[in-house]
Amino acid sequence: MLLNSERLFAGMKQESLDAIVATMPENVTYASGFWAMSQWIRRGPQAYVLTPGPGRGEPAVIASTGLIDLVADADVWVKDIRRFGKFIVDRTPGVDLDRQDQRIEALLAEEDCGDAVGALVKVIKERGLQNARIGVDEIGILPQYWDKLAEMLPQATLVRAADVFRYARAIKTPEEIARLRQSARIADMSITAALAVAREGATEMDLARAFHTKTIVEGGLPVLGCIGVGTRSAMTNVQPTERVLRRGDVIRFDVGGRYQHYRADIARNAVLGEPPEKMVRYHKAICAGLDRAIAMIKPGVRAADVFNAAVETVRREGLSHYQRSHVGHGIGLDGYDAPNIAPSSKDVFEEGMVICVETPYYEMGFAGLQVEDTLVVTKDGVDSFMISGTELRVL
Amino acid sequence: MLLNSERLFAGMKQESLDAIVATMPENVTYASGFWAMSQWIRRGPQAYVLTPGPGRGEPAVIASTGLIDLVADADVWVKDIRRFGKFIVDRTPGVDLDRQDQRIEALLAEEDCGDAVGALVKVIKERGLQNARIGVDEIGILPQYWDKLAEMLPQATLVRAADVFRYARAIKTPEEIARLRQSARIADMSITAALAVAREGATEMDLARAFHTKTIVEGGLPVLGCIGVGTRSAMTNVQPTERVLRRGDVIRFDVGGRYQHYRADIARNAVLGEPPEKMVRYHKAICAGLDRAIAMIKPGVRAADVFNAAVETVRREGLSHYQRSHVGHGIGLDGYDAPNIAPSSKDVFEEGMVICVETPYYEMGFAGLQVEDTLVVTKDGVDSFMISGTELRVL
Repeated sequence: MLLNSERLFAGMKQESLDAIVATMPENVTYASGFWAMSQWIRRGPQAYVLTPGPGRGEPAVIASTGLIDLVADADVWVKDIRRFGKFIVDRTPGVDLDRQDQRIEALLAEEDCGDAVGALVKVIKERGLQNARIGVDEIGILPQYWDKLAEMLPQATLVRAADVFRYARAIKTPEEIARLRQSARIADMSITAALAVAREGATEMDLARAFHTKTIVEGGLPVLGCIGVGTRSAMTNVQPTERVLRRGDVIRFDVGGRYQHYRADIARNAVLGEPPEKMVRYHKAICAGLDRAIAMIKPGVRAADVFNAAVETVRREGLSHYQRSHVGHGIGLDGYDAPNIAPSSKDVFEEGMVICVETPYYEMGFAGLQVEDTLVVTKDGVDSFMISGTELRVL
Repeated sequence: MLLNSERLFAGMKQESLDAIVATMPENVTYASGFWAMSQWIRRGPQAYVLTPGPGRGEPAVIASTGLIDLVADADVWVKDIRRFGKFIVDRTPGVDLDRQDQRIEALLAEEDCGDAVGALVKVIKERGLQNARIGVDEIGILPQYWDKLAEMLPQATLVRAADVFRYARAIKTPEEIARLRQSARIADMSITAALAVAREGATEMDLARAFHTKTIVEGGLPVLGCIGVGTRSAMTNVQPTERVLRRGDVIRFDVGGRYQHYRADIARNAVLGEPPEKMVRYHKAICAGLDRAIAMIKPGVRAADVFNAAVETVRREGLSHYQRSHVGHGIGLDGYDAPNIAPSSKDVFEEGMVICVETPYYEMGFAGLQVEDTLVVTKDGVDSFMISGTELRVL
């Protein structure tokens, strides 16, 4: 299961919520296993998951009828499904259906609740929550739908609650950790695949195509593909172009796809030919900062302390003017989960957090250098997901 | 340019708007050329474009400092950029920067406006729009940011305006049409590439990998990949699995990626071995419905009339019980732009609309059959983007 229900209930308790409603795609998938495709690939389509607090009733998924086949998927663990809207699916008479089609047929036979909010209100009332304090993830619900919800539940108290999901998602379940590990490994293998085509005359786009193709072959889907060479590597979000790779060019990857909906975000550098002394020194410094951060991380350690130690280490080890706003973040269904490894962060590491730790350095006129590892916080330290080392690979 | 400013101004005039603010990624890119990466690959990050009405001042982009290199991109035609937030980028002293890095350096030298709404309010006041009627695309702005905007502009009238952008986006510019044409062609070539690996023993995932890899090789990125075989093809949003292709299996593709941010959405069918008579007949019927719809489309024709003609044709040509909720939709930066080809639609075709026309049929226990073409409405008809025909390809 993706949902850490214990943690979600703890977050709800902190905010005195009787129930919580997921509305953004990441939270809908997280709270139910339901991958509401149209919501993932567009902005606006509505899908919700109602999760009542302990003892307040069963969770329910609210889905448009056009997505009902995805709700019938084996990965969806919420059993109470409410559908809305017209969508036509026929059925061959007299033929036995397989298990999934039987489930689809049963769901189509249920009542059409009209619209998303109507369906949500219906199930909230059935659970006796019409007077309750209900947290609503404010990121995925359209404002006119929020207004309608408030109007149809005049006795309920509606509270913005995206942060409660963010709090819950910070501690990953074993299934989430397995997916994130594979997602990071696919990204790592994809960098190696891209470097296999890196030679004089190859373009950034050639590297990107090799990178994304490997991600596809390994069962992932492309998302983040910042790949730049030469001085272009200093652009934070560099997008691949027809720029040709020349001797002496550095290559910076800040990349990662999705695997079973879970994100990857890692970074590595290579250089075509012998790197100048400055590049070697700077790269060693950022690697030392990364190593220092990773060595410190274990349950109970403050994220702000790790930030400070990482930055100090980079400065001491050869990049004396190094500055950063953060040196890492959680990752999961969203590319930036809690914790935030920043100087003002109040976050403390806990077992089960999956984290991207990074020490990027961008210098216009020179290069962008960046190492970023992904790892899970264990009982007494960390377990890295990485295959490759952080060294500046000389091609 | 992506923006059809004439149409946007007409939509603003209908709603008596003095200015409009884009907030969702599709509209931010549309109104400025700025691809605000973090907003595209996550939910929550804020980026805005203010577009004043004619004679009310220049447009402005509001971007986080961490995305400033993407604002410096040559494709961004809006010149007034306001940045917010801390992000560190160094610079080699004494070295000449290239044009794009010079632009980044200049933008970094500008004031940090603190946060997204602060930056937006600042430019609204500079334009003298603090008492104006301002349309705000309500889909991408977080509700707490909307509240803050209203609080900081007590004399302004804020109106939800996502529909004004939807209205503007319906009529494509030549640059948009060129991108959409290529996006559709890439999807079409990718189906052919997938069918090249379709043989007994190949899996749905094998087809998907071949499909997406071709999309990558042609410069696109995967988005929509509904690929199902046998009775699984009847699932509307079928996601590829390890299900093995057997003789007699139909294959349904409802697929399309992005090319330069513009979506594709096309559908085709193939069958491994000779199809049964019922499948041939049904497939001919849906093709006839599609042909009838396409033959009717030209400026001035009502979308509802095209819907009725398409459904009637499918029924008459061999699928007498055919029912549908719509037979197509616009496409652009969003996968579902206006118009909507549905029975209750008030939309009328206009020159420059890019449209997906489709006649899908889903029968559980049998198969899903679907043909979907993409085309642009011309002065007196349509110009198709498709390479392949709609015929049921027998493998």
